Amino acid sequence: MDPSKHELGFIGLGVMGASMAGHLLEAGYRVRVTTRSPEKAQEIIARGAAWADGPAAIAADCDRVFTMVGYPSDVEEIYFGPSGLIENAASGAYLIDMTTSSPLLARKIYAAAAARGIRALDAPVSGGDVGARNATLSIMAGGDKDAFDALAPLFALMGKTVVLQGGAGAGQHAKMANQIAIAGSLAGVVESLSYVKSAGLDPRIVLQSIGSGAAGSWQLSNNGPRMLDGNFEPGFYVKHYLKDLRIALDSAREMGIELPVLSLAESLFSLLQDKGLGNKGTQALYLLYELGLHGQESS
Amino acid sequence: MDPSKHELGFIGLGVMGASMAGHLLEAGYRVRVTTRSPEKAQEIIARGAAWADGPAAIAADCDRVFTMVGYPSDVEEIYFGPSGLIENAASGAYLIDMTTSSPLLARKIYAAAAARGIRALDAPVSGGDVGARNATLSIMAGGDKDAFDALAPLFALMGKTVVLQGGAGAGQHAKMANQIAIAGSLAGVVESLSYVKSAGLDPRIVLQSIGSGAAGSWQLSNNGPRMLDGNFEPGFYVKHYLKDLRIALDSAREMGIELPVLSLAESLFSLLQDKGLGNKGTQALYLLYELGLHGQESS
Repeated sequence: MDPSKHELGFIGLGVMGASMAGHLLEAGYRVRVTTRSPEKAQEIIARGAAWADGPAAIAADCDRVFTMVGYPSDVEEIYFGPSGLIENAASGAYLIDMTTSSPLLARKIYAAAAARGIRALDAPVSGGDVGARNATLSIMAGGDKDAFDALAPLFALMGKTVVLQGGAGAGQHAKMANQIAIAGSLAGVVESLSYVKSAGLDPRIVLQSIGSGAAGSWQLSNNGPRMLDGNFEPGFYVKHYLKDLRIALDSAREMGIELPVLSLAESLFSLLQDKGLGNKGTQALYLLYELGLHGQESS
Repeated sequence: MDPSKHELGFIGLGVMGASMAGHLLEAGYRVRVTTRSPEKAQEIIARGAAWADGPAAIAADCDRVFTMVGYPSDVEEIYFGPSGLIENAASGAYLIDMTTSSPLLARKIYAAAAARGIRALDAPVSGGDVGARNATLSIMAGGDKDAFDALAPLFALMGKTVVLQGGAGAGQHAKMANQIAIAGSLAGVVESLSYVKSAGLDPRIVLQSIGSGAAGSWQLSNNGPRMLDGNFEPGFYVKHYLKDLRIALDSAREMGIELPVLSLAESLFSLLQDKGLGNKGTQALYLLYELGLHGQESS
């Protein structure tokens, strides 16, 4: 893809979006950005990006627009709001939502875009802030194969594992599968360490025994030590993970399947959020077990 | 340790016990064995082990006795039964229970042994049949440091990671921590793949996207593909895992802690056993989701 021929738009400059947009800029593309908090755009503008005043302005100038925002309601607003992308993008443009959002909303965007000759893909990611910074994200895409192929050179600037999972919404479904596996794994680590602590064992010594066998996981190796260090700073926010769990649960309900571990995880993370810990990292689930699992114990 | 000076006893020659006793024999020790099904002893006797007629006969001749049987009730019988080890072992002997069993029972054995000048350790393992065969088990020990040190050369013949976790029962507690972490991890994989299948995605392609990041685990990498291949043969039996989950739950109750994911896993595995799948491997939890989670759907 010839960087001189395309104007790229990037909406949403949180910790991840800022890194991802930065990679596009470094590759030589002209990049226009917009975000709800303009101060978050200062750094990337200093590096050469142009500011645009909202989604409509981005859509007017850019033939490939990436969105990386917080919640499905934000996505809805950016695509379908009064100055939204669907209304204002040119026929033939590509709109790529990299937010972790609802599969249903992804299909709605795809259909509305298609009706106006616009190509839409859902392409949520995993790998967190570190993956975004190092361009090692796993990008899970949903949409048409030819649109995916057309965007592959851009995805390659942001991610290491880039896979088309199926039609519109399939990227979001794959991301939900990721979040569901994490729910079990993370909760298992938390309960394991809670047990160990109650039994009076040294959890670090227990981790030596159990860390590399059938109980081993990314969560155990990475979040286990953080829990024991009392480090609850966000790698990934509780509030965002709770949003994802709710999307996954809604989606499971729509499909008519029962996922009790996912349901339980959602209720545990709801409780955690209710205790005012939404801005901690997901490993703060451990605190919930230390505080006590019942609502009344928090008062 | 000089192999000529010690007579080792080994009680229980299941898939794991047979491999473990074999390593002791290969190292040059005289080994006496007994097991409930004598035909299971034929192979190791052909390799040079001697047969003994029950625990009392083992205790009469051996100064270090290992037990590796099925259930806490079997352990109870072997140690405290009418011809049990406690009653018949000589003062100064070492009794090492490597069965995954109850921490409470381990402490009871320790105390009864100590009262007769006998040294007891709990030393359950993880690593399965492969770890037993290759002597790469993780051995989690509980008991006195000097007794552990005295047995270290023997443990080293059977395991790679050999760790004293604390006093009597601590080995069993560490093993419970292992089983609890597995419960979450395994259930998360099962729900993730169930979701993916319902959403119409190709689960093998999803595993490419989610296998190496924050959702990654031993369970995902090893049992995920088995589930998708329809391979439910036992690496580790459902019936034995259910036993472990129940010990962990009982133990958590005794300590007054609530572990809802563990509770949920126990009820899911109970349901699986009720459906007649106790002799399948733990990855058969996936079948429960395919069969439907409600009892009535099985009829």
